[in-house]
Amino acid sequence: MNNIQIGILGYGNLGRGVELAISQQPDMELTAIFTRRNPAEIQPSLSGVPIYNVKDVLNFKNSIDVMILCGGSSTDLDSQSPAFASHFNIVDSFDTHPEIPRHFKSVNTSALLTNHTAIVSAGWDPGLFSINRLLAESILPLGHSYTFWGKGVSQGHSDALRRIEGVANAIQYTIPLESAMEAVRRGDGPAFTPRQMHTRECYVALLPDADPDTVRDQIVHMPSYFADYDTTVHFVSQEELQENHYAMPHGGFIQRSGTTGSDQENCHIYEFSLKLDSNPQFTANVLACYARSAYRLAAEGSYGAKTVLEIPPAYLSSRSIEQLRAEIL
Amino acid sequence: MNNIQIGILGYGNLGRGVELAISQQPDMELTAIFTRRNPAEIQPSLSGVPIYNVKDVLNFKNSIDVMILCGGSSTDLDSQSPAFASHFNIVDSFDTHPEIPRHFKSVNTSALLTNHTAIVSAGWDPGLFSINRLLAESILPLGHSYTFWGKGVSQGHSDALRRIEGVANAIQYTIPLESAMEAVRRGDGPAFTPRQMHTRECYVALLPDADPDTVRDQIVHMPSYFADYDTTVHFVSQEELQENHYAMPHGGFIQRSGTTGSDQENCHIYEFSLKLDSNPQFTANVLACYARSAYRLAAEGSYGAKTVLEIPPAYLSSRSIEQLRAEIL
Ligand SMILES: NC(=O)c1ccc[n+]([C@@H]2O[C@H](COP(=O)([O-])OP(=O)(O)OC[C@H]3O[C@@H](n4cnc5c(N)ncnc54)[C@H](OP(=O)(O)O)[C@@H]3O)[C@@H](O)[C@H]2O)c1
Ligand SMILES: NC(=O)c1ccc[n+]([C@@H]2O[C@H](COP(=O)([O-])OP(=O)(O)OC[C@H]3O[C@@H](n4cnc5c(N)ncnc54)[C@H](OP(=O)(O)O)[C@@H]3O)[C@@H](O)[C@H]2O)c1
Repeated sequence: MNNIQIGILGYGNLGRGVELAISQQPDMELTAIFTRRNPAEIQPSLSGVPIYNVKDVLNFKNSIDVMILCGGSSTDLDSQSPAFASHFNIVDSFDTHPEIPRHFKSVNTSALLTNHTAIVSAGWDPGLFSINRLLAESILPLGHSYTFWGKGVSQGHSDALRRIEGVANAIQYTIPLESAMEAVRRGDGPAFTPRQMHTRECYVALLPDADPDTVRDQIVHMPSYFADYDTTVHFVSQEELQENHYAMPHGGFIQRSGTTGSDQENCHIYEFSLKLDSNPQFTANVLACYARSAYRLAAEGSYGAKTVLEIPPAYLSSRSIEQLRAEIL
Repeated sequence: MNNIQIGILGYGNLGRGVELAISQQPDMELTAIFTRRNPAEIQPSLSGVPIYNVKDVLNFKNSIDVMILCGGSSTDLDSQSPAFASHFNIVDSFDTHPEIPRHFKSVNTSALLTNHTAIVSAGWDPGLFSINRLLAESILPLGHSYTFWGKGVSQGHSDALRRIEGVANAIQYTIPLESAMEAVRRGDGPAFTPRQMHTRECYVALLPDADPDTVRDQIVHMPSYFADYDTTVHFVSQEELQENHYAMPHGGFIQRSGTTGSDQENCHIYEFSLKLDSNPQFTANVLACYARSAYRLAAEGSYGAKTVLEIPPAYLSSRSIEQLRAEIL
């Protein structure tokens, strides 16, 4: 069998992660990277991978099986995902939760018109966390669910900061509140507002003429991203950002406690957790597996947009279903 | 929409758990329970549920959407699952891992001949643990995986003990070794034999004439179940068994640590864990969700045997896919 041919669109943190991720997968090959910038000015991490400007991408319609979209959720994927789903099978990691149904619909329309398969909002949250939220809530209908993130850098939120006028560079940490985690693990089943579970901490380097107060104001009131949290903004130099905030750890856990028994006397705790040294690299490894499933779904003629909730786990593995039944089940 | 009509075959721990599980699900209804014993001698937990002898089951071919098989893996499911898949959509929790491919094949043949859907080996292990093993190994190809169980009662192993001649009743505890868990959480990536991860402890009440040495010998040498572990057998009275070993807690976790980065410098820890006050009740709740997915797959004309690895997560939920994308993803 031929290897699955992968393209990468957008060469930021996630794009570099996907480049490395593909090299770990036994049945995949990286065909090319595409960027909106001048390819001559970009150095790929692995030698021998060609980089093109995105204007050349349609020349690869027949040689790329799945394009992995690595643009930012806040401004790129909105337009890139539907546009590329008209020409390629795609995977994206669109992570603005409230916008997912709208994004799904626009990608679905493009993909169905042209017989492509498009997996949207893959990664770990949305992604693996979503799968576990669904399983836990279905299996334990009577109970309480919680999702905690961090401490870690949220790429989506950092990306949103960087798109603000006057911001040169920025990093955002999501921090779970100790008191909230303790209450959940005691099985208290408490009710929280977003503000009672996490705080958000931003490290921002400004452009020379930017006004800190205007930028801070734009950040703390940004809907979906920051308005519902206690958000702290620290202005730092570009150098400090590079030196002290370069690593991108992340993680978190989803937990559900539920009861069974004729008097609901038995309690069950379901927990899924991730501790990630590099959020973009782990997310990239997840996207590589969903690229495999996009390839298989397309080969079966199962077109249109899909989410991680609609994909059988076996489609993520390089092993055959017979092997999986014998070795994994 | 009509509720999904459920039948239960076999009224032991798991069967009683399924009876309660169905009452938690908004779109399901329990039609009847079937037993090989005299129904007059069995008292259902919930009032109003009819109990029939299994010889009457074919009268219910048109009124039961999915039959949940609650027999023991070591002797019942082997024959019950293929036989019932000829007449009903079924779910079973067959958990003798090495025998799964053979079991799958025989159920598949029955189900395909008669256009039924049969989900085999659902539960938590095999089941939720299998899904997580698959996801973790696919996403982190370079790493080490571990599954720990307990401390808890293994129904499959207790069942196997009770089928031995001379045994009146018995309970088996699986116990993870502290030293092994510590090594894994340090990220050492150690290699273990089964014997180095868990011990097995059996509490056995004998029939009056039984010979303890013969029984002990049969236990510790039983292939698949006990031969590969350090197994301790305690002979106790029926009364002590009832009093001190009635609860059926269980749990465990699967963990994978894997690396990414150009020098494999970043480590990621994936962990899924369950803490269950009642193994049969939690397993029953899982089976109820897979009954829903069997119903949907059958309605789509997707017949034959399936495992949890082949089923999209969304099929387990009572919510529509549009709701799930908006609320869970
Ligand atoms: N679902 C999940 O669990 C999950 C987890 C993590 C991240 N994500 C998603 O991944 C998205 C991308 O994250 P990221 O960290 O890769 O964002 P990023 O580094 O800001 O990259 C986003 C885009 O910006 C452009 N870019 C990158 N570096 C640039 C530079 N030096 N100058 C100018 N343009 C540059 C790239 O496009 P060009 O190459 O075309 O210029 C790139 O595709 C996030 O927005 C988030 O939505 C999802
Ligand atoms: N995949 C997983 O994660 C998972 C987890 C837990 C359990 N399991 C599976 O579930 C299976 C069933 O477990 P279980 O605890 O329900 O076993 P059990 O209580 O021993 O019941 C097994 C069968 O024995 C019969 N039985 C029950 N009580 C009886 C009694 N007092 N006298 C005579 N017969 C009786 C019942 O059939 P009749 O009503 O027809 O007599 C019942 O279906 C296990 O073998 C295991 O394979 C799987």
